[in-house]
Amino acid sequence: MSASAPRLEIVALEGVPDISPGDELCGIVLDAYKASRLAPEAGDILVVAQKIVSKSEGRRIDLATVSPSPEAERLARKTEKDARVIELILSEAEEVMRARPGLIVVRHRLGYVLANAGIDASNVEAGGAESVLLLPENPDRSAATLRAAIARRTGIAIGIVIGDSLGRAWRLGTIGTALGVAGVTALADLRGTPDMFGRPLMVSEVGLADQIASAAALAMGEAGERRPIALARGLAAASEDSRAADLIRPREFDLFP
Amino acid sequence: MSASAPRLEIVALEGVPDISPGDELCGIVLDAYKASRLAPEAGDILVVAQKIVSKSEGRRIDLATVSPSPEAERLARKTEKDARVIELILSEAEEVMRARPGLIVVRHRLGYVLANAGIDASNVEAGGAESVLLLPENPDRSAATLRAAIARRTGIAIGIVIGDSLGRAWRLGTIGTALGVAGVTALADLRGTPDMFGRPLMVSEVGLADQIASAAALAMGEAGERRPIALARGLAAASEDSRAADLIRPREFDLFP
Repeated sequence: MSASAPRLEIVALEGVPDISPGDELCGIVLDAYKASRLAPEAGDILVVAQKIVSKSEGRRIDLATVSPSPEAERLARKTEKDARVIELILSEAEEVMRARPGLIVVRHRLGYVLANAGIDASNVEAGGAESVLLLPENPDRSAATLRAAIARRTGIAIGIVIGDSLGRAWRLGTIGTALGVAGVTALADLRGTPDMFGRPLMVSEVGLADQIASAAALAMGEAGERRPIALARGLAAASEDSRAADLIRPREFDLFP
Repeated sequence: MSASAPRLEIVALEGVPDISPGDELCGIVLDAYKASRLAPEAGDILVVAQKIVSKSEGRRIDLATVSPSPEAERLARKTEKDARVIELILSEAEEVMRARPGLIVVRHRLGYVLANAGIDASNVEAGGAESVLLLPENPDRSAATLRAAIARRTGIAIGIVIGDSLGRAWRLGTIGTALGVAGVTALADLRGTPDMFGRPLMVSEVGLADQIASAAALAMGEAGERRPIALARGLAAASEDSRAADLIRPREFDLFP
């Protein structure tokens, strides 16, 4: 597009291999830039799919090693799910919010409200359903580590968003959502910003990093496209001290517990 | 960006004037393309902010014309809001889900769960808080009308998403959300799509039009930027029979009523 207006470009990087525990994401990111005939630039924001972060951090769990508690057995019967998976969901959860046949919604220990504590089995590995992948232990830290490593190697401090596809309370379909950020504003505070007529805005906070994760999901695709890293260019969203937890509504303000 | 990979580009169109009741959005869209030195192309998706659709459809209500019912007066005391605005919210709502000081969350007659029934006063008009803007009467119809008008004038059937910034149950910040679509897949059904290892995907539906609305919101900005129309290029999201209601979780499956 040859427009004169400011423009946002999003491209899913090529050449991302299967990720194994211990793989260093910085090298993988820089190789993917190169395979896509691009180089890191100031202002770049990379959205990295949670799955490859989890894989690199060794968050895959062999279900044969999991012994379900009686509580997990009970919830497994209620939800018609594998009791070992339920055991892992409970170990990741602060609170079970809803449990129905086929569905368990929890508040994750990191504050996210999501189905299955973010654990799933798709795109994990070949060879069957005997292992699952947990969320990264601390996605903000994962993002900060990757940002720092890229800055060390290239001298350029790009923004990182760790994205996942999450469901919503009242709407169907998952959307890209930010689980971790580094160098990117998670929640943009517009309070005090005047609207077009100079009055204070009523809508005062924007889920910026979530919108970035959703935009990136459009480029990544959701199924088997092997494009787990997307680059967004053209956004002014830098922040030094933002964190994904800024996007989580404090429990005391939750109207839908 | 000169990458070889498929790329999504999003640009907020320039030259969009203040919109008045009766304004014909097709002409405004085509002028905005031109002002941005662009022309409609097959595959284009335009995200149009709900506010300008509502304005063009004359959905502005002078609060002086509104007589609150006793129920609206009661809710106004409870929420510490203007009883006339509450009256309008109730007239737009199927059900009040939560009402607290400063907040009212309803199920809109069109199925959306949102604060204030989507009614707000910011960016409506100069001269004070005595009028508000309702959502379009039927955003899918608004989108279809605009799509048809553009197709008649240009011969090109582009996709339309009517977007608004909505809050979420458990997360802070609003995100771009699709209230109406025409020619764009609202909910992408991936069931049966194999994952990277050939197994059926567990996450099977994606809120595609919501992700498009969020991506567009990044380009539009949320405050006084006067950029209520964004063009997305590079997406394969065409559909002839999709509607925004596809994104609404049926009430009988609502776990958080």
